[in-house]
Amino acid sequence: MTETLAAPAVGGDDVRDGGAAVESAVLATCRAARAASRVLATATRDRKDAALRAVADALVAQASRVVEANARDLRRGAAEGLAGGLLDRLRLDEERLVAVADAVRDVAALPDPVGEVVRGQTLPNGLRLRQLRVPMGVVAVVYEARPNVTVDAAALALKSGNAVVLRGGSAARETNAVVVAVLREALSAQGLPPDLVSTVDEHGRDGVQHLMRARGLVDVLVPRGGAGLIAEVVRSATVPVIETGTGNCHVYVDAAADLDAALAIALNSKTQRTSVCNSAETVLVHAAVADAFLPPLLTAMASAGVRLHGDDVVLAAAEGLDGVEVEAATDEDWATEYLALELAVRVVPDLDAALAHVDRWSTGHTEAVVTRDLATAERFAAEVDSAAVMVNASTRFTDGAQLGLGAEVGISTQKLHARGPMGLAELTTTRWVVTGDGHVRA
Amino acid sequence: MTETLAAPAVGGDDVRDGGAAVESAVLATCRAARAASRVLATATRDRKDAALRAVADALVAQASRVVEANARDLRRGAAEGLAGGLLDRLRLDEERLVAVADAVRDVAALPDPVGEVVRGQTLPNGLRLRQLRVPMGVVAVVYEARPNVTVDAAALALKSGNAVVLRGGSAARETNAVVVAVLREALSAQGLPPDLVSTVDEHGRDGVQHLMRARGLVDVLVPRGGAGLIAEVVRSATVPVIETGTGNCHVYVDAAADLDAALAIALNSKTQRTSVCNSAETVLVHAAVADAFLPPLLTAMASAGVRLHGDDVVLAAAEGLDGVEVEAATDEDWATEYLALELAVRVVPDLDAALAHVDRWSTGHTEAVVTRDLATAERFAAEVDSAAVMVNASTRFTDGAQLGLGAEVGISTQKLHARGPMGLAELTTTRWVVTGDGHVRA
Repeated sequence: MTETLAAPAVGGDDVRDGGAAVESAVLATCRAARAASRVLATATRDRKDAALRAVADALVAQASRVVEANARDLRRGAAEGLAGGLLDRLRLDEERLVAVADAVRDVAALPDPVGEVVRGQTLPNGLRLRQLRVPMGVVAVVYEARPNVTVDAAALALKSGNAVVLRGGSAARETNAVVVAVLREALSAQGLPPDLVSTVDEHGRDGVQHLMRARGLVDVLVPRGGAGLIAEVVRSATVPVIETGTGNCHVYVDAAADLDAALAIALNSKTQRTSVCNSAETVLVHAAVADAFLPPLLTAMASAGVRLHGDDVVLAAAEGLDGVEVEAATDEDWATEYLALELAVRVVPDLDAALAHVDRWSTGHTEAVVTRDLATAERFAAEVDSAAVMVNASTRFTDGAQLGLGAEVGISTQKLHARGPMGLAELTTTRWVVTGDGHVRA
Repeated sequence: MTETLAAPAVGGDDVRDGGAAVESAVLATCRAARAASRVLATATRDRKDAALRAVADALVAQASRVVEANARDLRRGAAEGLAGGLLDRLRLDEERLVAVADAVRDVAALPDPVGEVVRGQTLPNGLRLRQLRVPMGVVAVVYEARPNVTVDAAALALKSGNAVVLRGGSAARETNAVVVAVLREALSAQGLPPDLVSTVDEHGRDGVQHLMRARGLVDVLVPRGGAGLIAEVVRSATVPVIETGTGNCHVYVDAAADLDAALAIALNSKTQRTSVCNSAETVLVHAAVADAFLPPLLTAMASAGVRLHGDDVVLAAAEGLDGVEVEAATDEDWATEYLALELAVRVVPDLDAALAHVDRWSTGHTEAVVTRDLATAERFAAEVDSAAVMVNASTRFTDGAQLGLGAEVGISTQKLHARGPMGLAELTTTRWVVTGDGHVRA
């Protein structure tokens, strides 16, 4: 029961007839969200923060209701053979729910992006210009069976003045239904429209297809999940999409690297947490330091339980190292986002070759360079076409909280609108407000 | 021969076989553009400006070659029955070419967006953050048979450090082929890669389909043209798209309006130029001033040759006015972007009704309010969900040059990435550069 959106849509006349009913239900949900968003768009920060704190309180107060629904999802998942890791991500016990509620309070404490004057000036003809940050309107989030994302996405959307339409993985459907109900009740009790938070989960796969095509009603769709989900959204969506999260990240250890720092950065980038998009998948080593660096690198990685793939030079360096086994790397290794204790290692003759490797294989997320040479650091930062470049620091720092942006909606690997960690500002757009005294164009 | 992209694509096995060859040719063009873009991405402003001035000089020096190709397009267009307006937009005589070259020099004179530090700080742990403005990489522009757009789009893309892949209307194909050749020669002579400017015109409709799906190679696609072209691009594209340019703009004349200013603003918004997206299509009049305002409004519009559509109150007000004829307005009138000397007029009971009308019918481009009442102006600016709001000024000011942004790529009516007039900054993205001293995550 590992649902993926990438599976072919079912066909047949019955389904198509059902499709029209689903389409009108999904569009009605989006229209209601749009109407609700207009109310929140002009709400003060005080009002939004009070609503978020009420949401957090309600989640804790209604914990047993949420946990019971989650238990039903977990039982069904186990019966349908859901893998252990997926079951763990699906689990929402009381302790986790308290942490989720605390995260909502953290979002309330963040500054309000709405109303910021991004640019402003008075023109020679006396027109006063202001470019103001305003909410998007309706944010749609499509994600997998992680019920914490339901709350997380709703909190970020509300804080930035938006309504949110959610579509979670079907394995979490009972949990999500209850969580959404709790959020809507809390908003109503605060005098806000409950349609600020809604879900199209009950409409299944057909529902998400219509959500992705609700042009004029959905202002931005953010897919949060694996590469398959994101590819399917990009293929099917006609509403604006922000792609998030695939990271084939590199660490380049330069000839002028501090090798102790390089070892610490490579280890941290690979092993501090492996299932995340900002972990490293390939280490590139300048040939001049290969003899000195490969033995400690390979030994330390092997000790940390990392499965290793290497080119010929790496294979040769590994010979005779205690406890180190290296498999011959193929193009597939350079291309793979392992998301596991697994690493590819390659020796490159110079910086140009390192840049060429990154250009060929990177997904444009994060690359790190370890060097004491200024020109090398500058060239790497200027020429690597990725969302983030780390100079003498771990790839793991590409993260909203680590970069001081507060909570993050995801990490964008596209170039449009948002690149890298997306904070609250990235859930807003701008509006020009131009004030004159009867100005007309000559 | 009024080609529109919205026409159904041709099918059949032969075409599909040809499609594979076209696909590989289009992807090869995009790959070459991507490689070339890397060279320009790190070029200094001096180098880019010199190249733009060389491009301008080359266009003037090679004018006869361009004009001859244009004459062939014009002859073919006339033979194929192209309408007069389209023929005029297709025409590129020596005088127009000089103006186009001057526009390139104007772009060279604009500040360079690349390298701007958008945000920056030092974190508590000592990591130094900079968010830098960097080029997108490869910008694709799909447009209609207006050869000046070929030069314009190329100049804006180059100034912002990007390569550009063009697809113009087929009625202009000979002109575009020569213009692109002249641009490429000028870039080569400056020691820059000619693949910074390329076209997929020779691959016809099949080519543009592959261009719209060149994921990983095209960083942003900007359609410039009518609603049909934009809708087709949104439907087919899997690369990121910025929608531009449909404008069903409103002028709301409030109860507290200065009626002289209101008349001037309504006339300017409707008649100063009609074929543009920032011209007004509907005037909403508060009931309290309808008696005083409708007669001068209708008379002045009729005198300016404007065909009028109105609701019942407007129809009654028009009775007995010399030279004024008003047709009964339907929902279609509220919905239509006339782009002509044609206007819909409606009387509304209050600001709420005006806002509801705008919410229902606007395309989110520009709306104007004419009022002396502060609260009305503030509410209109806060609650209208459009790219630009004009307070006591003509809708015609939503324009890159008018707002002091310099040349514009188009006017975005979407909320993602760019909203309203798109200048050079909107053809860039950002990159986080994070500098540490061996920093790792705990």
